[in-house]
Amino acid sequence: MIEKTLNSEIVFDGLIFDVERLEIGREDGSRSARDVIRHHGAVALVTRKPDGQYVFVRQYRKAVEQMMLEIVAGTLEKGEDPVDCAKRELLEETGYIADEITHLGAIYPSPGYVDEKIDLYFAPVTGEGLGVPDADERLESLEMNHAEVEAAITDGTFTDAKSLAAWMLYCRKVYAP
Amino acid sequence: MIEKTLNSEIVFDGLIFDVERLEIGREDGSRSARDVIRHHGAVALVTRKPDGQYVFVRQYRKAVEQMMLEIVAGTLEKGEDPVDCAKRELLEETGYIADEITHLGAIYPSPGYVDEKIDLYFAPVTGEGLGVPDADERLESLEMNHAEVEAAITDGTFTDAKSLAAWMLYCRKVYAP
Repeated sequence: MIEKTLNSEIVFDGLIFDVERLEIGREDGSRSARDVIRHHGAVALVTRKPDGQYVFVRQYRKAVEQMMLEIVAGTLEKGEDPVDCAKRELLEETGYIADEITHLGAIYPSPGYVDEKIDLYFAPVTGEGLGVPDADERLESLEMNHAEVEAAITDGTFTDAKSLAAWMLYCRKVYAP
Repeated sequence: MIEKTLNSEIVFDGLIFDVERLEIGREDGSRSARDVIRHHGAVALVTRKPDGQYVFVRQYRKAVEQMMLEIVAGTLEKGEDPVDCAKRELLEETGYIADEITHLGAIYPSPGYVDEKIDLYFAPVTGEGLGVPDADERLESLEMNHAEVEAAITDGTFTDAKSLAAWMLYCRKVYAP
């Protein structure tokens, strides 16, 4: 049953998201309040080098207080084309270049309270990469082969939802052993 | 590189989440601000009936303004055991009963700015279910066989990140054709 917005107000204006409080009404006349996080959306991409290695990034995620292993990803700037964003983030985070990008699908990481949509892509990549990061790098890239990625999913090393969803779609739609 | 919390303040006190603004410091002496959404965490479960059908729920998600097809899920009440939460949500949302629950793994839906962790489970279920919902039901359950779920993932019907991640882990760790 659809929920119509009767009133809305931005109740928090943040650094990378806002919070909007909505008063919603249903067809049966009932009403409720909803807090919704407003986010610009994001992109994430599975990458494969000519030698068959996949490129990932590892970084400290303050929200969850741990190092996370993830596919390359980034938040859309306002009005930015998702494919341009994916290419930009890939170059910035890893030094690699994507020429041809395939859309794998889109996901909603937390549709219960966040409007963020993440477009998922696959790209074969070329270039030299950034090599070994400096000791004070906030983000490091690392490479794994197909079997290593599969093992890291099964043993729970990957806990990032977008990375898991993207890998599943990549294996169904692109990967040919 | 780890980010230490130097100062923190709850800047939004919401209905199902709060927002905390953190001042963080790094080993190199640099500082930044972070907005982090504080959430109690959640559970989600893949279910299979004795006849081989899987049970899903379909509901309107205001944050993304659309009907979403998802596995059974729910937010933890403060201090609630995740397995108890999973059994409660299953019964409330579908009418089915889970006796034995297998942990599939845990995911972070949006580790860049939300601390929410979702524990993923599989449960064989029994019982009669709730049957056809009333016209004014806010959530309806529906059943699909394995091939139908696979097709709905490939064609993009499933866009809920936790459902995709849970299904992938279920297929690796539990499912035997």
